[in-house]
Amino acid sequence: MIEKLFMNTIKKITKIPDPTIARLPIYSRCLIELMDAGQKMVSSEEIAALTGIKASQFRKDLSYFGGFGVQGYGYHIKQLFEKISGIMNLHQKNNVVLIGAGNLGSALANYPGFAKWNFSICEIYDKDPKKIGKKIGGIKIKDIKNFPKKCKYPIALIAVPGEKAKEIAENLTKCGIKAILNFSGKKLLKKNTEIIRNVDLTHELAILSYYLATHKGNG
Amino acid sequence: MIEKLFMNTIKKITKIPDPTIARLPIYSRCLIELMDAGQKMVSSEEIAALTGIKASQFRKDLSYFGGFGVQGYGYHIKQLFEKISGIMNLHQKNNVVLIGAGNLGSALANYPGFAKWNFSICEIYDKDPKKIGKKIGGIKIKDIKNFPKKCKYPIALIAVPGEKAKEIAENLTKCGIKAILNFSGKKLLKKNTEIIRNVDLTHELAILSYYLATHKGNG
Repeated sequence: MIEKLFMNTIKKITKIPDPTIARLPIYSRCLIELMDAGQKMVSSEEIAALTGIKASQFRKDLSYFGGFGVQGYGYHIKQLFEKISGIMNLHQKNNVVLIGAGNLGSALANYPGFAKWNFSICEIYDKDPKKIGKKIGGIKIKDIKNFPKKCKYPIALIAVPGEKAKEIAENLTKCGIKAILNFSGKKLLKKNTEIIRNVDLTHELAILSYYLATHKGNG
Repeated sequence: MIEKLFMNTIKKITKIPDPTIARLPIYSRCLIELMDAGQKMVSSEEIAALTGIKASQFRKDLSYFGGFGVQGYGYHIKQLFEKISGIMNLHQKNNVVLIGAGNLGSALANYPGFAKWNFSICEIYDKDPKKIGKKIGGIKIKDIKNFPKKCKYPIALIAVPGEKAKEIAENLTKCGIKAILNFSGKKLLKKNTEIIRNVDLTHELAILSYYLATHKGNG
């Protein structure tokens, strides 16, 4: 209830910049590691040293959600972690569907990180008759033809070849999928689905190549 | 030679913001698609419609590398693509080594996108005796114990479990690796290796969860 009120408050305040949102999981992961190590409080400078994100940036990012710090004592780690988890809606278990059971799909189905963050791949679909019926990550692969007309889960991971991604995204959207994490390498736009994050593994490598060419480190 | 002069010029000018660098591959991919479709010129507004990045942002990003546009005609697609490729050092073939031949490593070894951008996984290492000697993506998996003391390739992809990543990064650095793309899910810092990009698949899902919770689309 309090979380809901909190979320409504967030919605009402000014637009939170996308780069701030993108940094929240980095803070979360850092806070998890500190909790695991038994630490109770943390300063913004410690966060900076651990994440590579400037202390001033960290404080500015948190300021969008209200001040969590205690002057002279820093931040209560568990409390801050709970707040960020609430903001990102990670308190509850989030079931997601996976489309594509090739190499990348198999890697995603077996990716241990998802469970730690309350994500669970609960259904896997593919069109390849050789894959349908087999299991990856303990989940049986279903025929994409049998994808439910009204899917009860809002999030889908797309791990199919690029040229198929757009059509699949459109079909998923018709079936009630609200948010897509797209690993196809072919960029999907908002007109395909309202909420999309495009992951392109090649892009990261190209960025690395730039920093290597200019001999300039990055965080 | 001209490219080298060009790179030196870039190094001398003011620091290019990291978010600008991160957007260059998005522009590149868009330009490739336009070239494939036979288009010669493109406006910043078209780029915006195709990438989801604002036209003003696109023009500002390019301004760091000098003005490529022609007033009233837009941008010459092939020329702009060549410039961005040069900036990111994608003109030449970039050989990379892969550490870890599990699910994610196998997906990376078979990822078709890398070749399109002139990246080639040329060596694969793992410590698992069951994997050593087998092939993924056409490359034979070698024993990590035999990793060369002076590796001739500067870029490594790390696809090992998180708890192993730091030690491996340190060892790779001692062997001459200059840049690491880290898929382990455990963040590596600059003190491990000079140039690091951390890819965490869970982070992207958490960000998606935020946008879903706030019902706010993103690009």
